[in-house]
Amino acid sequence: MIIILKRNASEESMKQISSYITGNGLEVHVSHGKEVTLIGVVGNKDLINPDHIRSMKDVDRIVPVTESYKLANKKFHPDPTSIKVGNTVIGPDNLTIMAGPCAVESKHQLLTIAHAVRDAGATFLRGGAYKPRTSPYSFQGLEAEGLQYMQEASMETGLATICEVVSLDAIEQAVKYVDMIQIGARNMQNFILLKEAGRSGMPVLLKRGLCATIEEWLNAAEYIIAEGNPNVVLCERGIRTFETATRNTLDLSAVPVLKTKTHLPIIIDPSHSTGSYQYVPSMAKAGVACGADGLMIEVHDNPACALSDGPQSLNFKKFHQLTEELRPFCQLVGRTF
Amino acid sequence: MIIILKRNASEESMKQISSYITGNGLEVHVSHGKEVTLIGVVGNKDLINPDHIRSMKDVDRIVPVTESYKLANKKFHPDPTSIKVGNTVIGPDNLTIMAGPCAVESKHQLLTIAHAVRDAGATFLRGGAYKPRTSPYSFQGLEAEGLQYMQEASMETGLATICEVVSLDAIEQAVKYVDMIQIGARNMQNFILLKEAGRSGMPVLLKRGLCATIEEWLNAAEYIIAEGNPNVVLCERGIRTFETATRNTLDLSAVPVLKTKTHLPIIIDPSHSTGSYQYVPSMAKAGVACGADGLMIEVHDNPACALSDGPQSLNFKKFHQLTEELRPFCQLVGRTF
Amino acid sequence: MIIILKRNASEESMKQISSYITGNGLEVHVSHGKEVTLIGVVGNKDLINPDHIRSMKDVDRIVPVTESYKLANKKFHPDPTSIKVGNTVIGPDNLTIMAGPCAVESKHQLLTIAHAVRDAGATFLRGGAYKPRTSPYSFQGLEAEGLQYMQEASMETGLATICEVVSLDAIEQAVKYVDMIQIGARNMQNFILLKEAGRSGMPVLLKRGLCATIEEWLNAAEYIIAEGNPNVVLCERGIRTFETATRNTLDLSAVPVLKTKTHLPIIIDPSHSTGSYQYVPSMAKAGVACGADGLMIEVHDNPACALSDGPQSLNFKKFHQLTEELRPFCQLVGRTF
Amino acid sequence: MIIILKRNASEESMKQISSYITGNGLEVHVSHGKEVTLIGVVGNKDLINPDHIRSMKDVDRIVPVTESYKLANKKFHPDPTSIKVGNTVIGPDNLTIMAGPCAVESKHQLLTIAHAVRDAGATFLRGGAYKPRTSPYSFQGLEAEGLQYMQEASMETGLATICEVVSLDAIEQAVKYVDMIQIGARNMQNFILLKEAGRSGMPVLLKRGLCATIEEWLNAAEYIIAEGNPNVVLCERGIRTFETATRNTLDLSAVPVLKTKTHLPIIIDPSHSTGSYQYVPSMAKAGVACGADGLMIEVHDNPACALSDGPQSLNFKKFHQLTEELRPFCQLVGRTF
Repeated sequence: MIIILKRNASEESMKQISSYITGNGLEVHVSHGKEVTLIGVVGNKDLINPDHIRSMKDVDRIVPVTESYKLANKKFHPDPTSIKVGNTVIGPDNLTIMAGPCAVESKHQLLTIAHAVRDAGATFLRGGAYKPRTSPYSFQGLEAEGLQYMQEASMETGLATICEVVSLDAIEQAVKYVDMIQIGARNMQNFILLKEAGRSGMPVLLKRGLCATIEEWLNAAEYIIAEGNPNVVLCERGIRTFETATRNTLDLSAVPVLKTKTHLPIIIDPSHSTGSYQYVPSMAKAGVACGADGLMIEVHDNPACALSDGPQSLNFKKFHQLTEELRPFCQLVGRTF
Repeated sequence: MIIILKRNASEESMKQISSYITGNGLEVHVSHGKEVTLIGVVGNKDLINPDHIRSMKDVDRIVPVTESYKLANKKFHPDPTSIKVGNTVIGPDNLTIMAGPCAVESKHQLLTIAHAVRDAGATFLRGGAYKPRTSPYSFQGLEAEGLQYMQEASMETGLATICEVVSLDAIEQAVKYVDMIQIGARNMQNFILLKEAGRSGMPVLLKRGLCATIEEWLNAAEYIIAEGNPNVVLCERGIRTFETATRNTLDLSAVPVLKTKTHLPIIIDPSHSTGSYQYVPSMAKAGVACGADGLMIEVHDNPACALSDGPQSLNFKKFHQLTEELRPFCQLVGRTF
Repeated sequence: MIIILKRNASEESMKQISSYITGNGLEVHVSHGKEVTLIGVVGNKDLINPDHIRSMKDVDRIVPVTESYKLANKKFHPDPTSIKVGNTVIGPDNLTIMAGPCAVESKHQLLTIAHAVRDAGATFLRGGAYKPRTSPYSFQGLEAEGLQYMQEASMETGLATICEVVSLDAIEQAVKYVDMIQIGARNMQNFILLKEAGRSGMPVLLKRGLCATIEEWLNAAEYIIAEGNPNVVLCERGIRTFETATRNTLDLSAVPVLKTKTHLPIIIDPSHSTGSYQYVPSMAKAGVACGADGLMIEVHDNPACALSDGPQSLNFKKFHQLTEELRPFCQLVGRTF
Repeated sequence: MIIILKRNASEESMKQISSYITGNGLEVHVSHGKEVTLIGVVGNKDLINPDHIRSMKDVDRIVPVTESYKLANKKFHPDPTSIKVGNTVIGPDNLTIMAGPCAVESKHQLLTIAHAVRDAGATFLRGGAYKPRTSPYSFQGLEAEGLQYMQEASMETGLATICEVVSLDAIEQAVKYVDMIQIGARNMQNFILLKEAGRSGMPVLLKRGLCATIEEWLNAAEYIIAEGNPNVVLCERGIRTFETATRNTLDLSAVPVLKTKTHLPIIIDPSHSTGSYQYVPSMAKAGVACGADGLMIEVHDNPACALSDGPQSLNFKKFHQLTEELRPFCQLVGRTF
């Protein structure tokens, strides 16, 4: 941490700041410039409160030097994490394909889709049982009933299953029926839910918030891991920008950036980010090309009748065609699926 | 709702769409243009699913015409809402000043601050007992103990009290000790929490999400009101932009916009939005000048030692000076405090 | 400038960096921490190239400590600038009101509006003769003819005049006919135009770019001043955000921020920022309340027939009512108009 | 165009609006709903002024139905454009690689780089002779001298050449020495410059503005084409978002979106968008995978000594390795280079 003082900061202010820092067991290194004076802080910064320092006399600003996340940080865990879920592994050598409907609508629908996505190469079935919706008057999901259908689909097809959870109650239900839970974009900084997900012991897919920076996202992952649960997978699903031609803007640069900052696997969701099925194949290929560990893709037996997000769903034929087209890209990047 | 068809949409597609709509009890009005055909939908749009329509053949896009929120909508409730909380009223004729520390730190601290803000004209004591923080390693609040101190401060000073809640558990505690609960910016679309806040029966201050549009914000308010709780107050606390000189960008235009769209009161938080005490007085005056119903301001007995957000807190002297300076602005806009 | 090295940076890298800096006549101060090493750079940083340093081995990143703008910087010119234009002065004790149509449409129209805005208290007539438009098929302005009408209006009413310029050619014309030139938001980083504006010797109103930070804006002002032209006035006209209820988001916090960073006057444009006449009065009052040096407001004799931006224009009656309502706010902040 | 009226709009308002539209030779289709009335406008909307309508009594808002750009629109030119420049062709069957230094620094440097990038497979040499910089005190380019070096490099290597232009003067120089001109991101809405570029008759690479939507970008292209110059190539170079780990956010979804909206070729710039050489290979591959027509990549003989943007430049070895790795991706998408 570096403390930048205001021009003409008094000697007294500098001493007061230094003594606060050394009093907490850290060291200070002072650089006097012509225009400004800097105080470098060396030691365990968890012992001091940056807000205290910011409020001290003659402090201009503070520049953090090290990241606040530790357990998610590649510096301390250089090897990439691989996570076993059901019969499949998410991690450095595989391309994991999670596919299924946005919302679980009925048992019959889910089983039909599960068979189709498995036959095309998916190893995970996704399906929403709890749907966070902007308006209280929109369809909110089948809840526990939907989770049971997920379990049945898993037993019939051998697919691993993943469902979004939105509350402690939903986590308690999900633990009984599915293999992995998902924290959605709107809950990325719902810290209570993150802690509960950590305590559940289940693998967690953590979607990036619509306006979250990568730093904030990794801090959110840290909340989960800090509860003793290392099985966290990140999912980039688009950030909010001024562009309106796509629902959100898929930030694929996040993939190589994350590969330098964290050991956690990273999955790309081209369906929610673009909001339109016709852009999904291009972005899925781009995701594989830039190094993603997997894809989450919406597939529906009849997109025109989906209860939620139909316009972004692939039908079976298009999904099958996409997985076929993805295979040579996987070979190029050294992944199997 | 207007459905815009693609160029060269087939007669058959048009019939299919029309029959879906009329089959659900609504009416269609078709306009054939040289370039495009439009279908206007008339009736209760809750009966149809826009995503179904978006997925139908030859549909280009859908344009919503009416807002999805009803209970928060000024069209259906033209008179401004006023809400009685403790001994004070939030609403059209008052300027409500909520003041206090970012986080409750100790009983002594809270009582000292409570007396000071009351003497300067505040009618509400604010103070965080549950703190959502970006990093799991930052101070997270005194929780229930902090709520008890709030109650004691209220009994001593007569101030109404408000605390942020982050979970059902926190709501259950808050109901016992404080007069009003706050949903923070990061939880604005935590729909489970919104419903619980609605069911609590307590007045709710709903902060705007960092990237939320006014439309999404009013839909979040709708979640609370739809549970039978009409006592919702909105709080603008800054949105995320590219500007880094302030922590966030206070969107004061939201005040006149909200006055045309909703009957709910609107409070301005110049402390969190700017992140710097030196900008608070200017923005507080601007908030009053443009029609806000109140202000939420951070005040601390010793900002340099605050456990959270010290740099944006006013000390007692500056807060007192601000309330004195605000009085003539209140007169100009016809409000008392 | 502070250079933050990567973990485990080699001694050799550090020497290489240090010798580059000292070889250019600056000093280095090294702080060795447990996790990282910092190099503080002291001296005239114009002598070194930050990109060189960023590309050196083991450099993690660079943190600038001092601003790159000098002439616009309050640190070196603590007193607020006041600028005489025509018969009026823009600066610390006045509230300057610039009013007029978005686009000059005809001589008759302009004269009618000029009389009306002068009678209501404006001292500047604004009017666009060169209109930058998103589509090449929209009305682009009367160009030199429009400038001549501005001059005639000035002679008849005594108002100072201001027009946007978009090219060197437009500047050469404007110099002949009007008192002040304006650089529009889309040209804020058209550095060629900024230099030409600087060389013109005319007072310049510099609008903030739609996505520009305050730092970038002040650097743009520096381009003008660096050509020997100190008469620059800043104009906040809204920045692009996700909010769609207003055209842009008026960043009023920029006013107190700029007052701490620069000596240049700052004008608020509530018309372009909100895009709707009904929000103009509230935001104009808020602008005065938070310390702006002036307002730029669109006024039209018949907003429904304006060739450009009619929906945001006030008619004469509403403009007159607004200036009346502004007078007591001016008194409160100690300004006259 | 659809006009949405306010609730309770009067019959008289509706007639007034309709008569304005029909008076200009267009047709109206009125839909009366329970809550709102819509007026569909059919015909050539260039004949009417949307701002007039927006300002009319009882108009709530206007929804555009067709795009304002025509010449850049795929609807009217379904076949993809291919553009011959020097010995190379930009267009549907090739992957065009433009490579070179950010800024031309010396003749020797440029020739060295030109040979290296040609040997690795590039067909275009890029190099800035006019550099728009945020601060007036940064290096601004060699100007005409730099252009001459570009010409010499072209003669020696057979590479086509491209340079950014920032003014009419720069265009006049560039026409003499290089094969293609570039409009930079900051000038995307410098409409004067766009028109001059159109009139120059040279092929133009139009970079996307940092905050521009695809719609605005295509309208900017329309300015160039409307001057009779159809040879426009689009270049995505990152948009401004809240993410700070990369300089900007490369919007790769723009590639498939543009392929549905325009016939113009689209080039990806992974160097400026990420700001860091280590992310360039991943994003280059992703760009090819999602369908881009080319790449613009910064290459420098000694990145640590580049006068501008060194940290994002590849050295010769890394660039050569990248082009080798790109070849199999090109095969997969059916492009040659």
